[in-house]
Amino acid sequence: MKNQASVQAVEVIRYRDGRPLPVAADETAEEEPLEIRVEGQSIAVVMRTPGHDRELAAGFALTEGIVRDAAAIFEITSCLTTSPDAAGNAVDIALRDPTSFDAAMLSRHVFSSSSCGVCGKATIEAALQQFPPINTATAVAPQVLFSLPARLAAAQETFQRTGGLHACALFDAKGELLLVREDVGRHNALDKLIGHELLAQQLPLGNRILLLSGRVSFEMTQKALAAGIAIIAAISAPTSLAVAFARANNQTLVGFLRGATMNVYTGAERLSASG
Amino acid sequence: MKNQASVQAVEVIRYRDGRPLPVAADETAEEEPLEIRVEGQSIAVVMRTPGHDRELAAGFALTEGIVRDAAAIFEITSCLTTSPDAAGNAVDIALRDPTSFDAAMLSRHVFSSSSCGVCGKATIEAALQQFPPINTATAVAPQVLFSLPARLAAAQETFQRTGGLHACALFDAKGELLLVREDVGRHNALDKLIGHELLAQQLPLGNRILLLSGRVSFEMTQKALAAGIAIIAAISAPTSLAVAFARANNQTLVGFLRGATMNVYTGAERLSASG
Repeated sequence: MKNQASVQAVEVIRYRDGRPLPVAADETAEEEPLEIRVEGQSIAVVMRTPGHDRELAAGFALTEGIVRDAAAIFEITSCLTTSPDAAGNAVDIALRDPTSFDAAMLSRHVFSSSSCGVCGKATIEAALQQFPPINTATAVAPQVLFSLPARLAAAQETFQRTGGLHACALFDAKGELLLVREDVGRHNALDKLIGHELLAQQLPLGNRILLLSGRVSFEMTQKALAAGIAIIAAISAPTSLAVAFARANNQTLVGFLRGATMNVYTGAERLSASG
Repeated sequence: MKNQASVQAVEVIRYRDGRPLPVAADETAEEEPLEIRVEGQSIAVVMRTPGHDRELAAGFALTEGIVRDAAAIFEITSCLTTSPDAAGNAVDIALRDPTSFDAAMLSRHVFSSSSCGVCGKATIEAALQQFPPINTATAVAPQVLFSLPARLAAAQETFQRTGGLHACALFDAKGELLLVREDVGRHNALDKLIGHELLAQQLPLGNRILLLSGRVSFEMTQKALAAGIAIIAAISAPTSLAVAFARANNQTLVGFLRGATMNVYTGAERLSASG
């Protein structure tokens, strides 16, 4: 059951008005390592909230450029383990064409150029070589965007219990909530959401809106692009590189979405004047 | 000057009361890649806010177990680059004993065991083999802890401008603010802070208090342990594994530090009844 709840019981001493209360039960967001393997080779260990692990692995494989579509995945299995503590903490992705996989390509060193140094511009160009820019003309009414945070909050219970989970949500252009994923890691929450859609053969998500509970870094916009998401809205702030990347690939990027206010950083043409 | 400000200008369309205002200037937290090299070998590219890059590299080297003390570092230099865009986006750490460095040890695969699977318990044990548990008896008055968030906020200007930076602050046991570091990445902010103290030969930080603006994951407690920090206080929530790790290595972990309230998860014996 723990995978459903995503929380773990702890004991805590609460101070209220400066004074300690007796030891009491509390809950924290669960964090456990997940080892992701491709064709039996370990490619990453991510610290994640257990649950939706196959989706996380599938989303990670897509957003890291290991697979381009669901057809490239033969199956994703939980590994057998010799330790009961580690049960369920490893998944293996079997590819339809195992010869297409080169673990060396996954190294973070791929980013480094032969000259000593990288830059935001080169990072954006490298990502755009990997994934095509957005070319959909999906429109959304501002009033729909303003309604999304409340719809996410209504659907999201764990965060309110522990304060420790990031959430991603997928909506259609009318503002209907399609999917929510939560995780202690922002990247994991988005990989789980994208992995679900990948395995359901729903990619690319050109007519969907992605809502993020937190901040938007470059890597979040890159993952969204890998899934073909045209409209990203966040309750908190984007970074400079997230804005530059969204502009370069034709995504709409909205930040500080709160009440009837928001900041539109790129792609304002997708916001239709009327609902 | 951009490194001092940590912000980058963007244009934005603000919606207020549901209606768009004219395009206006705004600022976002700056995010750029930094390539970290050791002995000329690229070991990581981190997405960070420019500034304090030598400290970031030093802190990263310590918390990743590449060096154990400042004496192990011969020098940290900004790499020359052939591209003006990449200027300042790469640093190289030269070691006093280059033969001590084995890049293969840094791979994320180190975590993976020969059996298929990892677990939180094994993760904690691996980290504790790398860094000794805390053995200081430093005490702090709860009233001092309650005063820290306001002291950090007073010292922290960029966050209020962009909403996009995480902050770490170091205090002494009386609550005096010693150092603040901010970054788009939580891990980077902490590595910068720890790197500063490492290069200033101030480690271990057994009599210091670390304040985190955000959430506390396992990796944050692990980095704090690498610097010998006994008391971690955060404005937001810890994860289950952060609590378990802090307990296993004798750290004090406080979350939800707001006003005169807080949750003490581990190490409550360090909270003295009187100031």
